[in-house]
Amino acid sequence: MAAKLYDLELSGNCYKVRLLAALLGVPLDIVPVDFLGGAHKKPPLVDLNAFGELPTFEDDGLALRDSQAILVYMARKWGGESWLPTDAAGLALVTAWLMVAENEIARGPNDARLHDKFGYKLDIQRARSNTAHVLGLMENHLARATWLALDRVTIADIACMPYVALSHEGGVSADDYPAVAAWVQRVKALPGFVGMPGI
Amino acid sequence: MAAKLYDLELSGNCYKVRLLAALLGVPLDIVPVDFLGGAHKKPPLVDLNAFGELPTFEDDGLALRDSQAILVYMARKWGGESWLPTDAAGLALVTAWLMVAENEIARGPNDARLHDKFGYKLDIQRARSNTAHVLGLMENHLARATWLALDRVTIADIACMPYVALSHEGGVSADDYPAVAAWVQRVKALPGFVGMPGI
Repeated sequence: MAAKLYDLELSGNCYKVRLLAALLGVPLDIVPVDFLGGAHKKPPLVDLNAFGELPTFEDDGLALRDSQAILVYMARKWGGESWLPTDAAGLALVTAWLMVAENEIARGPNDARLHDKFGYKLDIQRARSNTAHVLGLMENHLARATWLALDRVTIADIACMPYVALSHEGGVSADDYPAVAAWVQRVKALPGFVGMPGI
Repeated sequence: MAAKLYDLELSGNCYKVRLLAALLGVPLDIVPVDFLGGAHKKPPLVDLNAFGELPTFEDDGLALRDSQAILVYMARKWGGESWLPTDAAGLALVTAWLMVAENEIARGPNDARLHDKFGYKLDIQRARSNTAHVLGLMENHLARATWLALDRVTIADIACMPYVALSHEGGVSADDYPAVAAWVQRVKALPGFVGMPGI
């Protein structure tokens, strides 16, 4: 039985999971969730993911929450050492960028898009300054590196790319970050790549 | 040569690293950083950690940022499979809680403490409601589980415990979360445990 993704098409976090599945050639059973109706906050979904968020993932009787953790699972199960190595240095370097996706990118371009595109009430000045901060750091890093964590593509790139590539929906021009924009293009050129609305 | 921790004693994120080192019996070369003087945002430290934050960690020529990523490194290098397993399910379940440390706990009890104890300007109402949300989720979870991620202690517990145990410095009474408080006591009872001011 294929792994199941409880999905919202416009969510960059759900898209990460769809993207890695496509790159790994792993079939997913994609279950669209009535997000506006709050289905993710009610049974049966909230019994799979107590945090009441999307994506939620199910495989082989295991329920998983958090897009970064789901990428870790998929990479270990279907990607060998390539997408996520298990040596101390490699795993830690990838993890450090998974944390950027969970923290700085979430509180930057993701929050700015939630405000601008979906009308969320949040501190938009803080989100914009967080966005400039993290994109500036990524620009400096990617001016000297092809991929974020290692000398090859890893789930660090898959975790960080979506909300960066969607940052124009939160008021950012990619032209201001040419090394970041070139990196997004490298991800888009990977064999098996799939997009989402806005990417 | 011992691994080096660029440290701030009152930081719960730095404390995580000191705590895991103590539990693993690994010596650390602890380098106190002049945080108020902004030494972490200037060379030479900013050359090791472009994000200009603490902790920063160095071992064997590798510089690492982010407390969760540093725990991953230490667990893989010195902890075998016990503190961080590498099978798909185990690694993903631990990672999901590392993400709670990086996101919900950081934006909850950590932010509330930054405001109340250190005078940071931030949305304290948001921080307090985030705190109640994540501690409520943890209370429900720990009412049925001994440890956060697996049936044994892992770095998930080490990553999540400090700012939860410090939440009284951000206006929370541990009495409101008895299962969480009992879990904190279990961490404190681990052989080799060390505390920090406030814990």
